Amino acid sequence: MSALTHHDITLLLLGLAILLAAARILAELAQRWHQPAVIGELLAGIILGPTILGALWPSVQQVLFPDTGPINTALHALTTVAITLFMMVAGMEIDISSVWKQGRAALIVGVLGIVIPFAVGFVPAWFAPSALGAKPDSDPLVFALFLATAMAITALPVIAKILMDLNLFRSELGVTIIAAAILNDLFGWIIFALVLAVMGSSAADMPVWQTACLTLLFALFMLTLGRWALNRVLPWIQAHSSWPGGVLGFALACALLCAAFTEFIGVHAIFGAFLFGVALGDSQHLRQRTRATIDHFVSFIFAPLFFASIGLHVNFIRSFDLTLVLIVVALASLGKIVGCTLAAHWAGFPRKEAQAIGFGMNARGAMEIILGLLALQAGIIGDRLFVALVIMALVTSLTSGLFIQRTFRGKRAVRFIDYVSAKTFMPELQARTKQDAIKALGTLAAQSAGIDAEDAVSAVWRREQIVTSAMGNGVAVPHARIAGLKLPIVALGFPSSGVDFDPPDDVPVSVIVLILTPSDANELHLSLLADIARVFQNERMARRLGEGARNLTELRAELNVETSSRLHA
Amino acid sequence: MSALTHHDITLLLLGLAILLAAARILAELAQRWHQPAVIGELLAGIILGPTILGALWPSVQQVLFPDTGPINTALHALTTVAITLFMMVAGMEIDISSVWKQGRAALIVGVLGIVIPFAVGFVPAWFAPSALGAKPDSDPLVFALFLATAMAITALPVIAKILMDLNLFRSELGVTIIAAAILNDLFGWIIFALVLAVMGSSAADMPVWQTACLTLLFALFMLTLGRWALNRVLPWIQAHSSWPGGVLGFALACALLCAAFTEFIGVHAIFGAFLFGVALGDSQHLRQRTRATIDHFVSFIFAPLFFASIGLHVNFIRSFDLTLVLIVVALASLGKIVGCTLAAHWAGFPRKEAQAIGFGMNARGAMEIILGLLALQAGIIGDRLFVALVIMALVTSLTSGLFIQRTFRGKRAVRFIDYVSAKTFMPELQARTKQDAIKALGTLAAQSAGIDAEDAVSAVWRREQIVTSAMGNGVAVPHARIAGLKLPIVALGFPSSGVDFDPPDDVPVSVIVLILTPSDANELHLSLLADIARVFQNERMARRLGEGARNLTELRAELNVETSSRLHA
Repeated sequence: MSALTHHDITLLLLGLAILLAAARILAELAQRWHQPAVIGELLAGIILGPTILGALWPSVQQVLFPDTGPINTALHALTTVAITLFMMVAGMEIDISSVWKQGRAALIVGVLGIVIPFAVGFVPAWFAPSALGAKPDSDPLVFALFLATAMAITALPVIAKILMDLNLFRSELGVTIIAAAILNDLFGWIIFALVLAVMGSSAADMPVWQTACLTLLFALFMLTLGRWALNRVLPWIQAHSSWPGGVLGFALACALLCAAFTEFIGVHAIFGAFLFGVALGDSQHLRQRTRATIDHFVSFIFAPLFFASIGLHVNFIRSFDLTLVLIVVALASLGKIVGCTLAAHWAGFPRKEAQAIGFGMNARGAMEIILGLLALQAGIIGDRLFVALVIMALVTSLTSGLFIQRTFRGKRAVRFIDYVSAKTFMPELQARTKQDAIKALGTLAAQSAGIDAEDAVSAVWRREQIVTSAMGNGVAVPHARIAGLKLPIVALGFPSSGVDFDPPDDVPVSVIVLILTPSDANELHLSLLADIARVFQNERMARRLGEGARNLTELRAELNVETSSRLHA
Repeated sequence: MSALTHHDITLLLLGLAILLAAARILAELAQRWHQPAVIGELLAGIILGPTILGALWPSVQQVLFPDTGPINTALHALTTVAITLFMMVAGMEIDISSVWKQGRAALIVGVLGIVIPFAVGFVPAWFAPSALGAKPDSDPLVFALFLATAMAITALPVIAKILMDLNLFRSELGVTIIAAAILNDLFGWIIFALVLAVMGSSAADMPVWQTACLTLLFALFMLTLGRWALNRVLPWIQAHSSWPGGVLGFALACALLCAAFTEFIGVHAIFGAFLFGVALGDSQHLRQRTRATIDHFVSFIFAPLFFASIGLHVNFIRSFDLTLVLIVVALASLGKIVGCTLAAHWAGFPRKEAQAIGFGMNARGAMEIILGLLALQAGIIGDRLFVALVIMALVTSLTSGLFIQRTFRGKRAVRFIDYVSAKTFMPELQARTKQDAIKALGTLAAQSAGIDAEDAVSAVWRREQIVTSAMGNGVAVPHARIAGLKLPIVALGFPSSGVDFDPPDDVPVSVIVLILTPSDANELHLSLLADIARVFQNERMARRLGEGARNLTELRAELNVETSSRLHA
């Protein structure tokens, strides 16, 4: 009954552990440099695959990640399940109703943002397929349709992440970009499913028209009746089953079932999981906690394994073709940026913002890579074009972040913790009065900035005497502007016994954040205060920090967790 | 590069969907009847395996879950990863420090609770191996050691669930049982790992003593240095990586790595994952949310897939041997119940409680099944003994729940929602005064019970005039004892505008729970009030119910989620 031997299991588990660890570590590094995690995950696979490990140490590479045999079958099965669930989560992020809310602007950008790059991709692919890396034996229409779709698709998660990093996610610009990208994704995948239907009907033993009809019917069903039925059945499941086991099991079993169905009719499994995710994610009965559990496990475990596994089978150096890469990047960027900028301008956005929308929609990321991989597996394209598409996906993701950042002059979110150092953090502040506390923290801050301590302390104290700096929720924020200071300095102290700052809500002050800012940095000063108000928006946070954080690492950990869980839940 | 064909992928996804859905549905049904989920999960596999589906419709069974070929390899790989992660979660529930806290009693019960059943298993297995279903070619010492361990092991999660269901989890009795079971589990698995080492050293190309030494060293390392190091490294990871991606990725990669290591040295992969889980779970830096994310995904997705897959390969009818089943059940129960009862009595528990501990420790559940499966795969035992062990695991789990329940006269947790019906629920209660509200709800309750409405209303009103029934947090609980009533009746109303119940905390009453209880059901009456106080222990709940629950299904869903998330987080 054992299909895998003792030896196979050892190597499979070891391979998975190495793949997951490498993918997560490189993803964290990518995010540290404000790049999408998928870049790091791909790189992990390229390092562990034939491109690098295979070139340096081929025997080890083939033992861990062989090209044939039971371990290869096992990895293929695991990554297939992983990408299926990843696409379900990607679908869950598609909120159809938000498209209607954004109305005309999103519609124009969404539709023209597909049509123009589609045309820009289709024409050259139709007239000069070989220059674009088509296989000699591939059907020219299928190839042209595929390349056109590949040019037209957009990476919703990458765009969302860029907008979030730049604090633009909730702005009108941000919401329009997101709504347009949602529309774009939905159309793009349905078109691609039809391309796959044309390709895959032979494997499914069905005539093309039947596969295509079933695909459209399934999509239509999922977006209408399926959505409605899911919304009705979720409360019933939550009432009559254990939580969250009932919903989790139901969601995953249905996703796998839909995936099996679309695989059966000849389009790829991921298409069924994606559409199921769209229908499920729209239900207002799906709880944030359930959503977060699925999302966390899939995004941080399954997605890294899948994207890393891509590099295991393709040699990115041998299949690298500079001309092809340049052509693909140019065609993709041209169609998307020009198309979306024009559309946004037409929809009424000023020039600068229209350009930002154009560049924002140009990000491809993970979706392009998945599309390319499916085409590679289906035999529509070869390794060279696949590598070019992957590089195009990375380049467009990188450049759209950089461009939007430059256009909006790097309005990166300000965090007070970034200005706290180990030297300016006093977990056990010995101070009985307001004046003592300000003196202790002000001296620390001034010393760390290399400015006169007495001046700084008296400036803060003068400010404090005008009106209390206690904000409520257990926090006080004594502060002053200091002429000649280069960068803001934040000192943080947790008084060991209550200090009377006369707070508006009578909650005892357990966290004191002392801020010194350059006298000309007005906006930065306000952003710091706003960040502190956001972090301490309830009493709990001050109490938790005062009790839990004994050094800078623990402090960062507490703040990091609190911020992330707010983003997700 | 495709190890699985289009056809394979369709069937694999379909098979997984069916397996997961069947396992989850039957697990829910098992829990509805207050049985461990694992019973339902196993049953799903028995239905979909050769025992039932294979007997009725062999071709379908072999297409979905074949015994050879790539789909079988894929399923084997997936279930291996599933059981590895399940054992990590099982390890995370082992809290070593709690054993020390319980001190002598837990130690005596824990140690004697292994030694006596171990001896009761070892002696007959050594002297009459063939009567106990040993394979003719198996090493008699290995077989006797295995059977002794199988008799000595206990199922921590099953016991914890039984105690929770009976509201005994936090009692002294409950905590002692749990601490003893933890000790028992830890010893049991280390002994079994040594048995596997004796067996597996040949596969690992190592002498026995080397495998055994490495196993003990690894266990020792994980329980001391490894534990300490994990506790130091977790805050660093949480501070310097995205949350919860950093911790999740780290935990799973390490678990897989430890699993690969123990598989490599010749004991089974799950042993490494289990010990890593013990070390990880002990860290106070592992957040409840991270724990819950891992726990939910593994317990509700991976565990059902694994336990259901067991039934796919064994024919439970053909390999059923009544004599062997009876001998195994008798030996197992005798050793464990007698051993633990004596030990508990010796440790100072009164006779009734000592018996309850004995029966509680007798539950085997999932752990026994995993142990049996490993022995089956390692060739120590055959199908007949495996089936007997599985049945023994189920029988002991069932009987220990029933016995403890009878001993403590079914003190099942009382829930007020169980006494609310669609007829006694008024999501939009039109009442402006306290009197109106009591009249409306009292009439509903009396009609549903078939008693005189005016009597009931005036009894509640008399009681209300003595002192307000408002409990604070937005809830009022008008109530009365009614002579001649058979069962309690609870009516629930959400007043559409504020009703003045003069609550102690001035939070407006948005939930009114009217209770009529039989005049002789004093304890039940108090339990109902206690349950209401527990559910509404903060303001949020009353507000959420008043806003969110428009019918009984939504009401149950809200209460269910709230209760479950409190258990987990």
